[in-house]
Amino acid sequence: MSEKDITTLLKETDEVILKKLREWAEKIVNAAQAEKKVYMEVPVRTFSNVFFDEEKGIIQMGERVAKREFLNVGHAKKFLQTALVASTIKDLVSEGITTSLRDVYYRIKHTIPGTKENTVDEQRESDKAIEDLETMLGFVREQMHVFSKGGKGKLAGPIQIEEVVPDPDGGPPRIVETDGENVGMGGWAIPPIAEPERVRIKKVEAEFVLVIEKDAVWTRFHEDRFWNKHNCIIVTGSGQPDRATRRIVHRLHYEHKLPVYVMTDADPWGWYIYSVYKQGSINLSYLSPTLATPDSRFLGLTISDYHDFKFGKEVKIKLTDQDRKRLKEMRRYPWFKHKEWHREFDLMEKEGFKMELEAGSSKYFRFITKEYTPAKLEAKAFLP
Amino acid sequence: MSEKDITTLLKETDEVILKKLREWAEKIVNAAQAEKKVYMEVPVRTFSNVFFDEEKGIIQMGERVAKREFLNVGHAKKFLQTALVASTIKDLVSEGITTSLRDVYYRIKHTIPGTKENTVDEQRESDKAIEDLETMLGFVREQMHVFSKGGKGKLAGPIQIEEVVPDPDGGPPRIVETDGENVGMGGWAIPPIAEPERVRIKKVEAEFVLVIEKDAVWTRFHEDRFWNKHNCIIVTGSGQPDRATRRIVHRLHYEHKLPVYVMTDADPWGWYIYSVYKQGSINLSYLSPTLATPDSRFLGLTISDYHDFKFGKEVKIKLTDQDRKRLKEMRRYPWFKHKEWHREFDLMEKEGFKMELEAGSSKYFRFITKEYTPAKLEAKAFLP
Repeated sequence: MSEKDITTLLKETDEVILKKLREWAEKIVNAAQAEKKVYMEVPVRTFSNVFFDEEKGIIQMGERVAKREFLNVGHAKKFLQTALVASTIKDLVSEGITTSLRDVYYRIKHTIPGTKENTVDEQRESDKAIEDLETMLGFVREQMHVFSKGGKGKLAGPIQIEEVVPDPDGGPPRIVETDGENVGMGGWAIPPIAEPERVRIKKVEAEFVLVIEKDAVWTRFHEDRFWNKHNCIIVTGSGQPDRATRRIVHRLHYEHKLPVYVMTDADPWGWYIYSVYKQGSINLSYLSPTLATPDSRFLGLTISDYHDFKFGKEVKIKLTDQDRKRLKEMRRYPWFKHKEWHREFDLMEKEGFKMELEAGSSKYFRFITKEYTPAKLEAKAFLP
Repeated sequence: MSEKDITTLLKETDEVILKKLREWAEKIVNAAQAEKKVYMEVPVRTFSNVFFDEEKGIIQMGERVAKREFLNVGHAKKFLQTALVASTIKDLVSEGITTSLRDVYYRIKHTIPGTKENTVDEQRESDKAIEDLETMLGFVREQMHVFSKGGKGKLAGPIQIEEVVPDPDGGPPRIVETDGENVGMGGWAIPPIAEPERVRIKKVEAEFVLVIEKDAVWTRFHEDRFWNKHNCIIVTGSGQPDRATRRIVHRLHYEHKLPVYVMTDADPWGWYIYSVYKQGSINLSYLSPTLATPDSRFLGLTISDYHDFKFGKEVKIKLTDQDRKRLKEMRRYPWFKHKEWHREFDLMEKEGFKMELEAGSSKYFRFITKEYTPAKLEAKAFLP
């Protein structure tokens, strides 16, 4: 693609969204003018309409749709909220502005004239209205110019990235290029919106993606230039990953066919984070097709590793009641049904401890980059 | 400075630290060999030894020093912990490795042979030992190659930055250059260690530094290229700032004589964050001289702004009991003693609400970058 192509992509995406929004609004207006029932059809996002798609390996949203009627006392306010958000998104897209969920909340919050009623009282309401639009229009909110917070994800390695940065005064957008091998110790900061129309993965020479749960551990890999020695891209979401980080991992896999390996602590929370990268989250099931990477494999850490790599007992952290409860829940998740995982759950419960990635430093600081990870990669000792 | 100079600086700093560590250790060993009392003198860091230095405008540590004796049952373990950390830092510096507080904890954690006693049981203990060394040796832990987490700070604007990235195989360090006007939407990720021997501020053409509490609001300023229109550097610490972010703000002020203006929410927590940039924090009082920027000015948000900029009542957020309690405490802080601040405390208490920076979006998305901030800057309407 030439430079022109990527800036054109943003323009085209914006146009498609504006067109879809217009059609959606016209349908409502036309119904009103024809004195027909005015309603919108919103896919149901509650747990009852979420299922695990075995074939695709992701958490998906079912087919159920709810009718939201304008002239229904129970629906009217939500109807209004969704319409207000739609109008705000139209403004954002036409003006080439991006903004946060919090700002959208303030933008649509008004006291309805002649009443004491507010359009929205809490951000949760405008967030839900945005989710409505995502499911109705089939675009993620990032494409509709809305992000959550600034990204907390980081990346480094043999990758060339181009970002389209629109000009605030309506001039042509700027293209910012990043060479992932020539970033500082903070890495490339994954931006709040990492959709293809804004972030182009121009060239990748890596052979796989290594996702590291914690940023401090990621810094170890970056400082040791692990990405150079093992020809990979190293990514961290700094704990529970935001959508942009998951999106980049997803795109590296699907656009560039890179295998994805995930490293987390050996504890229920870390393993759950792995499943968020892999299958998606229950709350955002309708986004799994764009955010999840079901072919991801788990590289470590496990309680088996404790024995295989002969760690000392000082790295053991006793399981809490909370951990044991979480383990029980995870046993029931269909995406953790593999016997390899159940063996690890059993082992953790039986031995009664968890363990962190930083435990490698009890041997020596570079144990994780020099021995542990290379050995696991070499043996292809992944969990499904 | 030439490229050689900045890489030399890191080497020189490392050498000075190794020398100081050796002297410190030799003093202890010599005392032991001479069969004298073996002890170290540790500056006291509790609240009783912290005071507000009116003249310098920062929270400082007093002169009190405690003797920690090797052959004192109550001191022996802490003595051991500090010695273990000192030895670990020697390794880190000689090997050119940086690492996190958590890794240092694991590194020194061992069961003492022949006993069931661990050298450290919790990270708090190794953290305290590192603080001991910071105060005894007069170097911050970042200079001694230890960081907390990956940085969460971001920056953009007319600034040229050079980072020294040591080679993990002992080759010459790499120099990574960043042009703050040509960064993506995530900005330049402030690295976990932002000391002069690793991060060089090569050239600054800005006239001031604008610190913005929240990253989502910072993204508004960045997208609108506020730094270009108003010739400034925009920085965010994404909430409570980490040390590296405060260090960069401090350095921009002292090395480049830039005025620093801080923007936070109009709430006790936001105002407290302002004071952290400005005066330092009570817990880390001994670091104030390197981290605090006492000449900082508060640009907003205030409850007076609510009236001056004619916000609608829908942006008001009711004060909680917790907020009122916090306000009472802040009234007693000597660094908030100015009548301008007490007027704002009174106003907030009387009117009973707080307000967020995102409230500007209730007018229009760019209100904060197009009207609010320019008006405040123009009027020099700062609080001390």
